[in-house]
Amino acid sequence: MEIITYNKISRNKKLKLLQRPVIDMTKTYRVVQPILTDIKSNGLESVLKYSKKFDGFSEKRIKVTVKEFEDSKKLVSSRFKKAVKAASNNIKKFHKLQLPKKYSVETMAGIKCSREFRAIENVGLYIPGGTAILPSTLMMLAIPAIIAGCKRLVVCSPTVKNLSNEILYVAGYLGINEFYKVGGAQAIALMAYGTNKIKKVDKIFGPGNQYVAAAKALVSIDPNGCAIDMIAGPSEVLVIADGSANPKFIAADLLSQAEHGNDSQVILCSTNKGLAEKVIKEIKVQIEKLPRKSFVEKSLENSAAIIFNKTDDAINFSNSYAPEHLILNIKSAKSYLSKIQNAGSVFIGKYSPESVGDYASGTNHSLPTYGYAKSTGGVSVEQFMKGITFQELSKEGLESISTTVIELANAEKLQAHANAVKIRLKK
Amino acid sequence: MEIITYNKISRNKKLKLLQRPVIDMTKTYRVVQPILTDIKSNGLESVLKYSKKFDGFSEKRIKVTVKEFEDSKKLVSSRFKKAVKAASNNIKKFHKLQLPKKYSVETMAGIKCSREFRAIENVGLYIPGGTAILPSTLMMLAIPAIIAGCKRLVVCSPTVKNLSNEILYVAGYLGINEFYKVGGAQAIALMAYGTNKIKKVDKIFGPGNQYVAAAKALVSIDPNGCAIDMIAGPSEVLVIADGSANPKFIAADLLSQAEHGNDSQVILCSTNKGLAEKVIKEIKVQIEKLPRKSFVEKSLENSAAIIFNKTDDAINFSNSYAPEHLILNIKSAKSYLSKIQNAGSVFIGKYSPESVGDYASGTNHSLPTYGYAKSTGGVSVEQFMKGITFQELSKEGLESISTTVIELANAEKLQAHANAVKIRLKK
Repeated sequence: MEIITYNKISRNKKLKLLQRPVIDMTKTYRVVQPILTDIKSNGLESVLKYSKKFDGFSEKRIKVTVKEFEDSKKLVSSRFKKAVKAASNNIKKFHKLQLPKKYSVETMAGIKCSREFRAIENVGLYIPGGTAILPSTLMMLAIPAIIAGCKRLVVCSPTVKNLSNEILYVAGYLGINEFYKVGGAQAIALMAYGTNKIKKVDKIFGPGNQYVAAAKALVSIDPNGCAIDMIAGPSEVLVIADGSANPKFIAADLLSQAEHGNDSQVILCSTNKGLAEKVIKEIKVQIEKLPRKSFVEKSLENSAAIIFNKTDDAINFSNSYAPEHLILNIKSAKSYLSKIQNAGSVFIGKYSPESVGDYASGTNHSLPTYGYAKSTGGVSVEQFMKGITFQELSKEGLESISTTVIELANAEKLQAHANAVKIRLKK
Repeated sequence: MEIITYNKISRNKKLKLLQRPVIDMTKTYRVVQPILTDIKSNGLESVLKYSKKFDGFSEKRIKVTVKEFEDSKKLVSSRFKKAVKAASNNIKKFHKLQLPKKYSVETMAGIKCSREFRAIENVGLYIPGGTAILPSTLMMLAIPAIIAGCKRLVVCSPTVKNLSNEILYVAGYLGINEFYKVGGAQAIALMAYGTNKIKKVDKIFGPGNQYVAAAKALVSIDPNGCAIDMIAGPSEVLVIADGSANPKFIAADLLSQAEHGNDSQVILCSTNKGLAEKVIKEIKVQIEKLPRKSFVEKSLENSAAIIFNKTDDAINFSNSYAPEHLILNIKSAKSYLSKIQNAGSVFIGKYSPESVGDYASGTNHSLPTYGYAKSTGGVSVEQFMKGITFQELSKEGLESISTTVIELANAEKLQAHANAVKIRLKK
């Protein structure tokens, strides 16, 4: 991990610090598109073909049975069950407050406009299963969907030998019963296009590797595909720390992000060079005991400690970078909150490690990466719903707005638009 | 316009009624991708090249000047100005109520979680200019952006000879000063990738032809592109009418939708075959006077009048179709509102033609088409913002959640995640 003094580097180097490693999806799209096209035409048969090819899955039945859900209850520890309950409760408490409220207003006398929200009926939740099993991700996606009131939750997760009992347990705990043992691009195609027997979904949520990400992107731009939550890149954390911070805590936070995968992004911003040096030393100590050390070392290669003159400069840098996770381990952290413009989730003060947000504080851990925090928030109840607008005009309301509508329709040369008003007001 | 009795047709024909004309974007993507790639590498020079090629635009300066904005004030009628003011006021009144509210909750003692909203800093608004000029679309996109608090609004609209004074006037009226005379895929590339002098935007909004739609889709799946509002298809209306409805009103509503373009979708659902017959007769009368008659005739070819036994059946059909616009011209229309699950905007009763929503009732006219109303609402203030979550734990808060976090991190074999908690609680 290199230490960089921000005001001593060139403008070009500054811009480079903001950039993520270039991801050229073109090749991945080229690999994934034929899989999607095949499944779109041939349904389950092709899903099974790719599941066998990529995951070695050779069963004919992909749907998890009631018995499998039941068995999982016996196969997970009571400590795990307790943890799921505690985490779910916090996630529910936080997300329940996101339910959007309907409203109505009379924009002019006789013109009543309103907006109401409806749950998306069919949602697909993708739970990756590659280098780690992720029961927490199932909680983070399913709980908002349930609060939104989605009628049908479809879950897909890859299965090599057996599905993780922890994931099955969480699914059962949350009342999910439509769960397919399918992963990768084939799972996304299954949900986006459906088969003879499995109805397609309206929107797909969830993280995944580059093939899953590519499949989600491609179905989202196929008019006969479906919507998706967001385009996801590698996970990231940006820590802003000052001299008051404990270097051990910061090292642990950076490592917890770095263990996600080879390509995780880890940045330390500080006004204190001495602290950065201590953090780097501490990383070298802590890294030794980590089972996922190889991932960690790889992702630390892309990482940097950047030294700023003022905390405000670090905040500005963070806003331009738009990190997925932002840790503020600084004195009077709260006074900076209003300045934070672009970030997925923010961790305030020394007792708020990122891992509490990953599991159990209550916020969602499915967050925008790769700078998408500039335009998108993390997964929320609203994303499982859509707003519908309504308008009801009385005759008087229509009369009072008629000249406005007719004038604008004329300006746009849309005669029939004007007619629809005129014909109603004809004597 | 064919009359179809719903319960007399086969299941396959029923399914077909729900389908939109197949749009195969593959070819359009193949045409548009090289344009995007070129502009991504070569910036303004290539933008100008395509503007000349496709729009015959041969100037070097693409930015609208202060003088042009000023001139437009003199060149539009005072009636038009009055209409813009009235429509804007209603749109503002309705959209102001969409500003999302921040909230905070203590999910457990010592664990404070909150969510706040921030405007997207740079937004791009595309205003089409092909077969009709659309100053109303600029109001519909810019007003929510302004209410959200977006710092920078970039507008692009194609220019063959002169830009529409109406559009320039609306831009000036709303305080927009960054306006480029560029249309088509090249405008989308300009906004998504930026140039040496024009900073890229974070999200692009707005309708457009198939090339614009393709460009938006492609930049949305390029990790170095930007977010978009939605994938748009041809405009659509579904009218549910019973024997109480005036066939002249319904004919006018269907025609006002049909005049948008060749591919507009128009559907009448009724419990009353006599009404459908009268509507078809009335269409034949009204169509004669329309300047856009050729569009109308073309889109009526794809349209149908479907006869149902009960209003509830028509509502169910509409939910499956998920129309952009839904007109309820039926007795006690309000009693059906809670049953409407999928629609962009709903027009209630006989004095609510769709054109009032297109211009001036206050609701947004930028709405999901092609069945996307199943997953997405129309453009709203929230879409110009993103939620950021925050969490702040006290030492006690961290202690109380620590076993939960550590247990779940262990289940996912993410040791460093557990460490970040343990290290903070070490004695």
